[in-house]
Amino acid sequence: MKILDKINSPKDVKNLTTEEMNILSEEIREAILNRVNKVGGHLGPDLGIVEATIALHYVFNSPSDKIIFDVSHQCYPHKIITGRKEGFTNPSEHPEISGYSNPAESEHDHFVIGHTSTSISLATGMAKARDLAKEKTNIIALIGDGSLSGGEAFEGLNNAAMLKSNIIIVINDNEMSIAENQGGLYKNLELLRKTNGQANNNIFTAMGFEYHYVDEGNNTNKLIEAFTKVKNIGHPTIVHIHTLKGKGYKPAEEDKETYHWQLPGFLEPKIAPENIEETYNTLTTNYIISKKQEGVPIVAITPATPGATGYDKEFRKILGSQFVDVGIAEQHSVGYASGLAKNGAKPILGVLSSFIQRAYDQISQDLALNNSPATILVYWGGISNADMTHLQTFDIPLISNIPNIVYLAPTNKEEYLAMLDWSVKQNKYSTAIRVPFGPVKSTGKKDDTDYSLINKFEITEIGEKIAIIGVGDFYELAKEIKTEILNKLQIKSTLINPKFLTGIDEELLEKLKENHQIVVTLENGVLDGGFGEKISRYYGPTNMKVLNYGGKKEFTDRIPLHELYKKYRLTKELITEDIVKILA
Amino acid sequence: MKILDKINSPKDVKNLTTEEMNILSEEIREAILNRVNKVGGHLGPDLGIVEATIALHYVFNSPSDKIIFDVSHQCYPHKIITGRKEGFTNPSEHPEISGYSNPAESEHDHFVIGHTSTSISLATGMAKARDLAKEKTNIIALIGDGSLSGGEAFEGLNNAAMLKSNIIIVINDNEMSIAENQGGLYKNLELLRKTNGQANNNIFTAMGFEYHYVDEGNNTNKLIEAFTKVKNIGHPTIVHIHTLKGKGYKPAEEDKETYHWQLPGFLEPKIAPENIEETYNTLTTNYIISKKQEGVPIVAITPATPGATGYDKEFRKILGSQFVDVGIAEQHSVGYASGLAKNGAKPILGVLSSFIQRAYDQISQDLALNNSPATILVYWGGISNADMTHLQTFDIPLISNIPNIVYLAPTNKEEYLAMLDWSVKQNKYSTAIRVPFGPVKSTGKKDDTDYSLINKFEITEIGEKIAIIGVGDFYELAKEIKTEILNKLQIKSTLINPKFLTGIDEELLEKLKENHQIVVTLENGVLDGGFGEKISRYYGPTNMKVLNYGGKKEFTDRIPLHELYKKYRLTKELITEDIVKILA
Repeated sequence: MKILDKINSPKDVKNLTTEEMNILSEEIREAILNRVNKVGGHLGPDLGIVEATIALHYVFNSPSDKIIFDVSHQCYPHKIITGRKEGFTNPSEHPEISGYSNPAESEHDHFVIGHTSTSISLATGMAKARDLAKEKTNIIALIGDGSLSGGEAFEGLNNAAMLKSNIIIVINDNEMSIAENQGGLYKNLELLRKTNGQANNNIFTAMGFEYHYVDEGNNTNKLIEAFTKVKNIGHPTIVHIHTLKGKGYKPAEEDKETYHWQLPGFLEPKIAPENIEETYNTLTTNYIISKKQEGVPIVAITPATPGATGYDKEFRKILGSQFVDVGIAEQHSVGYASGLAKNGAKPILGVLSSFIQRAYDQISQDLALNNSPATILVYWGGISNADMTHLQTFDIPLISNIPNIVYLAPTNKEEYLAMLDWSVKQNKYSTAIRVPFGPVKSTGKKDDTDYSLINKFEITEIGEKIAIIGVGDFYELAKEIKTEILNKLQIKSTLINPKFLTGIDEELLEKLKENHQIVVTLENGVLDGGFGEKISRYYGPTNMKVLNYGGKKEFTDRIPLHELYKKYRLTKELITEDIVKILA
Repeated sequence: MKILDKINSPKDVKNLTTEEMNILSEEIREAILNRVNKVGGHLGPDLGIVEATIALHYVFNSPSDKIIFDVSHQCYPHKIITGRKEGFTNPSEHPEISGYSNPAESEHDHFVIGHTSTSISLATGMAKARDLAKEKTNIIALIGDGSLSGGEAFEGLNNAAMLKSNIIIVINDNEMSIAENQGGLYKNLELLRKTNGQANNNIFTAMGFEYHYVDEGNNTNKLIEAFTKVKNIGHPTIVHIHTLKGKGYKPAEEDKETYHWQLPGFLEPKIAPENIEETYNTLTTNYIISKKQEGVPIVAITPATPGATGYDKEFRKILGSQFVDVGIAEQHSVGYASGLAKNGAKPILGVLSSFIQRAYDQISQDLALNNSPATILVYWGGISNADMTHLQTFDIPLISNIPNIVYLAPTNKEEYLAMLDWSVKQNKYSTAIRVPFGPVKSTGKKDDTDYSLINKFEITEIGEKIAIIGVGDFYELAKEIKTEILNKLQIKSTLINPKFLTGIDEELLEKLKENHQIVVTLENGVLDGGFGEKISRYYGPTNMKVLNYGGKKEFTDRIPLHELYKKYRLTKELITEDIVKILA
């Protein structure tokens, strides 16, 4: 019988001997590898935090003592210990348990968490509420070294230090962010590691925290000792633990970046890589490389997610000092890009739709208000089957309602490259481009649109009665609907590729009035505040009927795309049905 | 003849003797006092930075050496030295020069800046661009100690420390934010001041910066000496200068918070204060105080702008530990509120519309995704005659397109108090309330609406043909239009107070179809992504005509409201004209 078989709640950890805890650690690692190999997920950070999680549950009493996770990249061992091991050991239960902290699953989780750098703020609030209720519990924030560079984490530290009561911030220092750590903060963490926590120069004590260091962060006894020392402590305290990212799985220990996260099947023997397919990522990196080779002062920036945007190790090597990973720091990444652009360089910031929302004020104030000609590439934007913490559905309302910025939505490879090139060459506008998701579509024909004609939509096929405006990758859906309408209703619709998300082409919309009765808009994102509503507003006072299609304003959680499309009536059949009703 | 008369550009400073620079300092102070007394503006920070600005221009060569200001609260002496003194000495020229850094005014300004904590990011980008161009200039960020707590500043420091070239960050430490500094960071600044910069524990050296301290930050010679030492330095460097906020004007030296900013006429003799009028600020603070007295664990939070939201010294005293100034840290303020709410406290975060946009991701992820029942009070929201950096026009699209959160728009005192009370008592929704701007309107009748009926609009007057939906403080305009229409067209319109901004009342909108042809929406904010567009979308496929009124998506700069209203057709006459056209 395994030790893990007896672990159904944190209480069960408290009776274990050290030896049993060590065995349990290995069993938990096996469970983690098993799950990630089946459904994918975060591997390295979870493998590294196993002993610390056991020690936390051994020393503290969850859920009355509260452990707040940061970004949830290290919550698997916690889930396993707190009654959710089936989600790791039993494949049929895998989908029941998410990869992120979630109170709906367990009283041991306190927040739904998936974006970084939030745990200290959340924990500081919880600690303050506890004090007002005159309760005595431990509030523990568990944050990785990588997440510490995010502004909210620092704001949280700054405020947490002012508490006159218990808060324990455990810094899981595995010497890595998603990729390598970047920044001055990490010089201090390195010094602290090198001096076994004894260095005088210590950012945390400088801010007023009591500070403890555990060099052997995968040694259960040492961790228990440290946590016992700070349990019920009456003032803000840091426990800095030094762990091994990927511990126990050699490939992950050796290549920490690659194994930060893995797709299903990573344990199976690897098939020799095929010829690398063309993707929007390779199109982007090839373009950037060619500009560098031409001597353009192009700078590729990532806020700590180089992998997601195709900025791989080979690319970084070629770019040299013209590739900059600013660390988890989306706000800074935008301000930095603005500074670069204003001083003559050509910054390209690549960021996922879900994370660009961490820099709204910087896009507005640092960038657009200054008309800094930087380019933001927004990746993965669209209605999303992801976890509710990682939806990519909100970037159109977020960006397109900010003045000055030009937000472009290409529908294929040639448009994308033309927009990218225009954006890099011009010096007048702050721009963003919604990089298409999925396989590359090509017309095979160079796009020679003049994108300096801002907000000029393109009529791609002239028809009558019905006009269909397909935004970005939903342009393909527009074509399908056109065919469906032709077949069902024998009407030849007009097809429009708007290209611009930040304004409308009034001249074109005005012209449509002459021989159209219905305008349909399709956008791969939330409808509220998005593109289609602007078309509805324009035609509001007229006889034109407008139908807006897109996502509903909601946090969906791992819903398959075909279900969402059906729910949102985003199929050619359902939309044609709606049109028939209006024509009737 | 004054020294100032001879100062038309930074070059003219370079020829001055120390004695002349000291006289110039006093003349500049006089000019600052003169301007602020005429048009209002930032006083304390500008009075404190006079000598440092003279020293910067004496040592460095602007504009080839670039000085980047943070938040622009300390750019007046710079403006005076760089050819814009008339904006301070000559009343007729005051409006020509803004209170903020602005490249349109001078080649010595590099960005339009008005939100805090951005200078280090912008400067780091500029430095990187300079390196790529293989140029040799000094890039200087000038940031106040208060602005350092903002997350972007820390993200910027973290990245700036990695530069292998010149960047000079001047920290103007006047021991104050807008109000008092808050947070652990300030313990370290205090230690550095006390040890004349010699303490081993130093956040800046910990991050890898070279560090210099100037205790006499209002001593021109000492400043020149320090700046000369770091000029052309080849690596990231901090110059920490200790200045006196408000220097040279006794009341400002003594009451630093009050004189951070002043309205016109502050130099004139004060009239004895009248009975304090009821305002939405006093309604709020009185409500919070009453809840505290009832034993509700209410917590009033401000991100460093207590004055703007009426959290004055008296209020803070009464609230005691239930008032928390988190410092300039909007992101943290929202995460903190979420933590408080999840652990049973009742947080009320008061924040200006212009600044709430610094926490979009936190409202979405930390708060709304978690349904944390915190209350955000959004102040000053509306079409704005402010500087382009401080528009308050974008909060409706920003907040109302986030799922889960309930954004309420009261039209009068009774509604506001009922919404506030509902928000504090319920535990189901994250809420925000758009606090009305301007004088208090009262019906004299308690509002007993059940706000748990989410998205339920109220028909306040039943009419026909035309329905007017007036959002928040534009409900008054809706009433005026109703009267105008009655007089001009003899039509009795329907009047609707929507109360909710985060959804639509489909049942009500459906019913309007029965005997209405036109729906007019009025919102005090930008139209793009806002409330009215949702009504247009709803009626898009129908025969209903919809007219949306609100602001245009643009950065306007100190345009009087009546001009903006006219431009946006936001008058009863112009709107009635539009209606007549449609009815024709």
